[in-house]
Amino acid sequence: MNNQIRIGIVGYGNLGREAVQAIKQRADMKLIAIFTRRSPDSMQVEDETLNIVHISEAEAYKDHIDVMILCGGSATDLPEQGPFFAHMFNTVDSYDTHAKIPEYFSSVDEAAKNGGKTSVISVGWDPGLFSLNRMLGEAMLPKGETYTFWGEGVSQGHSDAIRRIKGVKDAIQYTVPIAEAMEKVRRGELPTLSTREKHLRECYVVLEKEADPVEIERQIKTMPNYFADYETTVTFISESELKTKHAKMKHGGFVIRSGKTGDNSNQIFEFSLKLDSNPAFTSSVLVTYARAAYYLNKAGDIGAKTVYDIAPKYLSDRPVEDLRRDLL
Amino acid sequence: MNNQIRIGIVGYGNLGREAVQAIKQRADMKLIAIFTRRSPDSMQVEDETLNIVHISEAEAYKDHIDVMILCGGSATDLPEQGPFFAHMFNTVDSYDTHAKIPEYFSSVDEAAKNGGKTSVISVGWDPGLFSLNRMLGEAMLPKGETYTFWGEGVSQGHSDAIRRIKGVKDAIQYTVPIAEAMEKVRRGELPTLSTREKHLRECYVVLEKEADPVEIERQIKTMPNYFADYETTVTFISESELKTKHAKMKHGGFVIRSGKTGDNSNQIFEFSLKLDSNPAFTSSVLVTYARAAYYLNKAGDIGAKTVYDIAPKYLSDRPVEDLRRDLL
Repeated sequence: MNNQIRIGIVGYGNLGREAVQAIKQRADMKLIAIFTRRSPDSMQVEDETLNIVHISEAEAYKDHIDVMILCGGSATDLPEQGPFFAHMFNTVDSYDTHAKIPEYFSSVDEAAKNGGKTSVISVGWDPGLFSLNRMLGEAMLPKGETYTFWGEGVSQGHSDAIRRIKGVKDAIQYTVPIAEAMEKVRRGELPTLSTREKHLRECYVVLEKEADPVEIERQIKTMPNYFADYETTVTFISESELKTKHAKMKHGGFVIRSGKTGDNSNQIFEFSLKLDSNPAFTSSVLVTYARAAYYLNKAGDIGAKTVYDIAPKYLSDRPVEDLRRDLL
Repeated sequence: MNNQIRIGIVGYGNLGREAVQAIKQRADMKLIAIFTRRSPDSMQVEDETLNIVHISEAEAYKDHIDVMILCGGSATDLPEQGPFFAHMFNTVDSYDTHAKIPEYFSSVDEAAKNGGKTSVISVGWDPGLFSLNRMLGEAMLPKGETYTFWGEGVSQGHSDAIRRIKGVKDAIQYTVPIAEAMEKVRRGELPTLSTREKHLRECYVVLEKEADPVEIERQIKTMPNYFADYETTVTFISESELKTKHAKMKHGGFVIRSGKTGDNSNQIFEFSLKLDSNPAFTSSVLVTYARAAYYLNKAGDIGAKTVYDIAPKYLSDRPVEDLRRDLL
């Protein structure tokens, strides 16, 4: 196929690997290269046709890649890689350190504008599609409240916190939205919900030999910030059960806007995702927004962008006339 | 408040009346006038401060109204009013004759471009927010199927069809999505669903004196196009029960995209609305898109637009920096 959008991927972890698959599902795109900080020769890659390149050589691809998908983490990778790549390539990333988004936006915006490029930041599902729905719900129903519930799904940060406890061999933590709270919201009751009333935390823990389950359960349930403010359950399981029953990175959640129109009617606006694989879906969203970065840049719209700046048509590979005819 | 967006409303039926309320909920907007084909003096209007003007005088408001909200019907009003007003004003409408959307788009587009105006067509919830989600779901999950379920809600067309039967004094029809079909979709089973498998039709009917209930039930259930292809229930009720229990124009529905990402994981994307008043919510969406018509026109983006052409930020009254800080 001619005129495919030429894609590069920076970072070959969970997200990067899934981005490779997401590109294969889209006939209008073509993967050119994957850039990594590791030594490309040392890497074990299932698919030998992939072109793995050291990150230091990225600049040589300036004229051969239309959009670079940045698959690094928000803590240390993206604050550096975002502006660096935005100067040379159109980019898309999943930056999610919420408090620092304005700062990150500015630094990417400046780099992209200097380079005449377009960078879509903070996409995925939250931030991303959930952010979009929080905004749409508020705009359509200005008098009301917005509620976000996450889960049922794996929280990497909370799982790690449990694994750091002495005597824990492995662990996984699920965030579970509380059905009763969601039903109150859906009935238009506009409840004020405390942290504890919105989500449960379910922990599945594999113990080291001779570890004390009572003490470990106590340590988990009283851990400040992570568990102390929540209803938390701890279930001890075997290592094999953890591997077989808890291997999938499922996740999802709900954005609900409950509002009243001028006639005092209750109106409920809800968006939800139920994902069997969080990284696969997040990558799919990133790759979809890569298409928008490409088209916005072609239209001369440079600088940093978020979900709020992007007309939906730029996310589709179909002509807008077809969208009007088939989907409107 | 200075710099409010000055709004006009064309048509003072269900939608127009609710649009008045929706404008009051938005501090950045101001209602200038309501235009009607009836004689303004003859109209019974609750709120005497409303400026009701005969439609023939609309042109005199060219410099005093930023966006005209067209609240007429799709069958006969909008095909004429859409292009007529698009030439003089930015407009927004809820045109919903699906098969004729391309034709309607062209005629409004030409008029709006000639007049240097911006016209957002076919907004509301379906077409409108549902159309947006059908497109987004497909873009995020290109391998999959999209399902739209409507209801539980009142279908005006089906209610009218029952009322036309001899012996029926009054009637209301609810379209009800079939829970079992929705659950199959949500489980990622990608079912092929016939018309009958997606929706039930529940009819509440008030009989004329001496009408034959058996014959009327038969006529309803065998009515081609409207009921013959559906599981239909008929319940006879008293006139007072119809007035007390079935007065609200509730509606809603579900857009579900069930897809598989490249790793073969099931991923479910769902948007839903549960509306106590269909006309109040539809008007609220129209008024929100009126804001977009105004901002797009200010940005020089003229012609006919649909939900696919509009960057979400134009729907909010908040600066995009605030959206990034608070909602991303």
